[in-house]
Amino acid sequence: MRHLIDFGDMTREEWDELYRRCSDILDRPEAYLDACKGKVSASLFYEPSTRTNFSFQTAMLRLGGSVFGFADPKSSSVAKGETLKDTIKMVSGYADVIVMRTPWEGAAKAASLYSDVPVVNAGDGGHMHPTQTMADLTTITRLRGGVDGLSVGLCGDLKNGRTVHSFIKAMEKFRDVKFFLISPRELAVPEYMRAFMRERGMWFTEVTGLEPVIPQLDVLYMTRIQKERFIDPLEYERNKGIYILTRRKLERAKDKLLVMHPLPRVDEISVDVDDDPRAVYFKQARFGMFARMALLADLANQPRREPEPVEIGRGRVCRNPRCITATEGYLPPLVKRIGEADCCAFCDAPLG
Amino acid sequence: MRHLIDFGDMTREEWDELYRRCSDILDRPEAYLDACKGKVSASLFYEPSTRTNFSFQTAMLRLGGSVFGFADPKSSSVAKGETLKDTIKMVSGYADVIVMRTPWEGAAKAASLYSDVPVVNAGDGGHMHPTQTMADLTTITRLRGGVDGLSVGLCGDLKNGRTVHSFIKAMEKFRDVKFFLISPRELAVPEYMRAFMRERGMWFTEVTGLEPVIPQLDVLYMTRIQKERFIDPLEYERNKGIYILTRRKLERAKDKLLVMHPLPRVDEISVDVDDDPRAVYFKQARFGMFARMALLADLANQPRREPEPVEIGRGRVCRNPRCITATEGYLPPLVKRIGEADCCAFCDAPLG
Amino acid sequence: MRHLIDFGDMTREEWDELYRRCSDILDRPEAYLDACKGKVSASLFYEPSTRTNFSFQTAMLRLGGSVFGFADPKSSSVAKGETLKDTIKMVSGYADVIVMRTPWEGAAKAASLYSDVPVVNAGDGGHMHPTQTMADLTTITRLRGGVDGLSVGLCGDLKNGRTVHSFIKAMEKFRDVKFFLISPRELAVPEYMRAFMRERGMWFTEVTGLEPVIPQLDVLYMTRIQKERFIDPLEYERNKGIYILTRRKLERAKDKLLVMHPLPRVDEISVDVDDDPRAVYFKQARFGMFARMALLADLANQPRREPEPVEIGRGRVCRNPRCITATEGYLPPLVKRIGEADCCAFCDAPLG
Repeated sequence: MRHLIDFGDMTREEWDELYRRCSDILDRPEAYLDACKGKVSASLFYEPSTRTNFSFQTAMLRLGGSVFGFADPKSSSVAKGETLKDTIKMVSGYADVIVMRTPWEGAAKAASLYSDVPVVNAGDGGHMHPTQTMADLTTITRLRGGVDGLSVGLCGDLKNGRTVHSFIKAMEKFRDVKFFLISPRELAVPEYMRAFMRERGMWFTEVTGLEPVIPQLDVLYMTRIQKERFIDPLEYERNKGIYILTRRKLERAKDKLLVMHPLPRVDEISVDVDDDPRAVYFKQARFGMFARMALLADLANQPRREPEPVEIGRGRVCRNPRCITATEGYLPPLVKRIGEADCCAFCDAPLG
Repeated sequence: MRHLIDFGDMTREEWDELYRRCSDILDRPEAYLDACKGKVSASLFYEPSTRTNFSFQTAMLRLGGSVFGFADPKSSSVAKGETLKDTIKMVSGYADVIVMRTPWEGAAKAASLYSDVPVVNAGDGGHMHPTQTMADLTTITRLRGGVDGLSVGLCGDLKNGRTVHSFIKAMEKFRDVKFFLISPRELAVPEYMRAFMRERGMWFTEVTGLEPVIPQLDVLYMTRIQKERFIDPLEYERNKGIYILTRRKLERAKDKLLVMHPLPRVDEISVDVDDDPRAVYFKQARFGMFARMALLADLANQPRREPEPVEIGRGRVCRNPRCITATEGYLPPLVKRIGEADCCAFCDAPLG
Repeated sequence: MRHLIDFGDMTREEWDELYRRCSDILDRPEAYLDACKGKVSASLFYEPSTRTNFSFQTAMLRLGGSVFGFADPKSSSVAKGETLKDTIKMVSGYADVIVMRTPWEGAAKAASLYSDVPVVNAGDGGHMHPTQTMADLTTITRLRGGVDGLSVGLCGDLKNGRTVHSFIKAMEKFRDVKFFLISPRELAVPEYMRAFMRERGMWFTEVTGLEPVIPQLDVLYMTRIQKERFIDPLEYERNKGIYILTRRKLERAKDKLLVMHPLPRVDEISVDVDDDPRAVYFKQARFGMFARMALLADLANQPRREPEPVEIGRGRVCRNPRCITATEGYLPPLVKRIGEADCCAFCDAPLG
């Protein structure tokens, strides 16, 4: 693996190897104190994301590496009057690995075309956030011994959540996972996610209530429901209590249940759940740091390599207004096949 | 010592041990180059304080450790829509020690209840700033061999200065210190500080003029007088010259006097004093870094430890509007006894 | 060399030694992994300059050193209510070397008077930016074996460019360099630069067209032409195409030409030039990092040394409104002789 743009780019074998390294770091952190000695990570956060930024930074620092970059483009003059390509060319001259977060979909992919060093996607708009998925899988694997065969409840806003969709997609690499999709009808998973699961023979059921299914779950993945997502505010008021996890609702859950959450939480998990040993959402954040250590220990040590020249774009191909090609006109018009459709190779939006 | 919230929490023995380590670092810095190797400090500055932030950062870096965090909450998305507890839970998963500065009184104490790693109070509103006191004591001890038996002048605004009050309180750990409290009447030490000194049999005298007492002093601790603190602006204009230290006023001072200042100064010490060997305020800032090294060399190397669960708060107890409990409602209603009174265990304000 | 304020302060021998070290770092970077172990660089950017800041930071990090500071004074409380002297006194107590960028001319020189550690000028207004010149010379020397005897085209705005003037001045240390000064008449080099070259017997010719001279060049140094610099906007529109470097214009250039640019570029070099092996502007940025490593490996390892006290200023001497003496009144009234004229020793502006 040269770049990590999308979790789906990894094979099951690559993931297993990454997890083995992660697990070894958890068991013997002292063996990795100099794993990235002399290596420097560029942390390019074109939009603030403190949690993800901290996690990547501490991952690099705990490997004996170091970090530079910006946490917010407002406090930076990069991006002003300069193309993404030129910024990446410059930064990849200084760094051994680039970690980037952007509001533009496909930006990490675009960066990877010009970078002399590996690029990690730390979130590109609503598109991909592969290291969140790595954090989730590491948590489950470490605490339950594996992912295969588990019953997983996904609860909250399943319509808009990038985290949830990435998680479901990642599950195609595992066997016999059962999904309990728990959400108000207005915020159910989109039809293309249902199609994804059906095509791969993944077991799933959709329900609107949390309490009835809790006893069956090995993992309960909570996400936030934003009031703004409801067309009818009254519907929100009627529903919100159903999806708040409390200590009482946990009474009939399995002893080994894992309660997860990508954080930050607002009020979808009651504070009285925090001291329950099944609440692992803070551990999950910590496991995310270790997963990123496993990733950076590999990528930051790869040799510099000038990428092959690419075609210079001459006009827009993708019509997604949030796609990186909308503003960076020199990008090549790359196309990829997803199922039956031609899609933009940057943002995955269908073309034409 | 697990956390450093208040200098008063330390015993004299603990301080002596800390100073011995500090002194050893000053003598043999090369022996501490890897004292915090592989350790990471979180630097959470909810309000900017460049000087304190730089001091803590360089302290950690000089021990071979590393630092992440934010210098100003505006450039951070932490604190938005997240409780202090959740931020600390997350950050303490990434860090080996947390250094925090906040405008809210008692915030470091609150953080210590939830953190898996030691917490250092780098200033919590007008409440405490224990490492400033450490810097002051290190300076005096290093340059004068000790604190016991010295005559100390405190000059300027003695009514509002957190630094001054902390310094006086710290002196109860030492013997035979004489205080010359030099201030305009409007800005004299508050009555509860006088009571503090009387109860402990500490010698002090209050004067309004600086020059007459200078010859008697071993230490002259200057602080800033802010015009805004005067009820009567004319009174300020009449007074300000008296409290400005000049080269001329130093003429009759002892040869071994230490002129100290917490910095930044505005004009309370004339520039022509800077080259006098008795002016040690810039050295004092540097000693502060070494004192923080001594502290972090201990705390950052302590094992992670999940704190005991605490009660969940159900309503406000403390009425201090600047207390951390005013905004973080889940905090437990902890009470401590100060003298005769029940006080808030976070901000020390009397209850009821 | 104690401080680097102006490239002109270095002798040819000092530069040759610096380049040798730089070259050695390029050949054997692993030998320098701990060259600055335990050393800390202060990065004081009173105005944002991401590129320069990143370059200095990564230089220090790759030497095993570490960095603290601010990237923008808005996110810092330094500079508020404190003199530059006091800031430098404080920071030089924490750091082993200070890298500073300011909008005020002569500020790095001023800092060097009070600092216990070496100061590097990372740009002081329109005045000096010596490490940019180091990056330029390193690029040429590394890729062409040396600077002596080369034909160098300087193209674009030669009137206002600090980079260009510094480059020309640096050339006095080398032999037989020929300058082709390519610019619109409105933006030709200032008369004092012509005088500089004539006095030193440097060969130069001024032309308005780029294409005719390209075949003769060993180095083509492109700079940006800002529309705002033209008195007549129509003149800009008529001219701009002439100074844009395209793949087609490069057809008749030498095979070993070096196309350079200080970055960021806007559109003065067409994107289709980037993949030409003669385009070395991104390499130039990377060489700049190595040049800064060579510099910091020396300066950050120098012993601390309290500077001699200087006179306290009592009134303004220099009339340059952008000079650091305009705001920092305590600075000594230092004068230096440039040619026939008495000049301000901070900003080099003629006095009287």
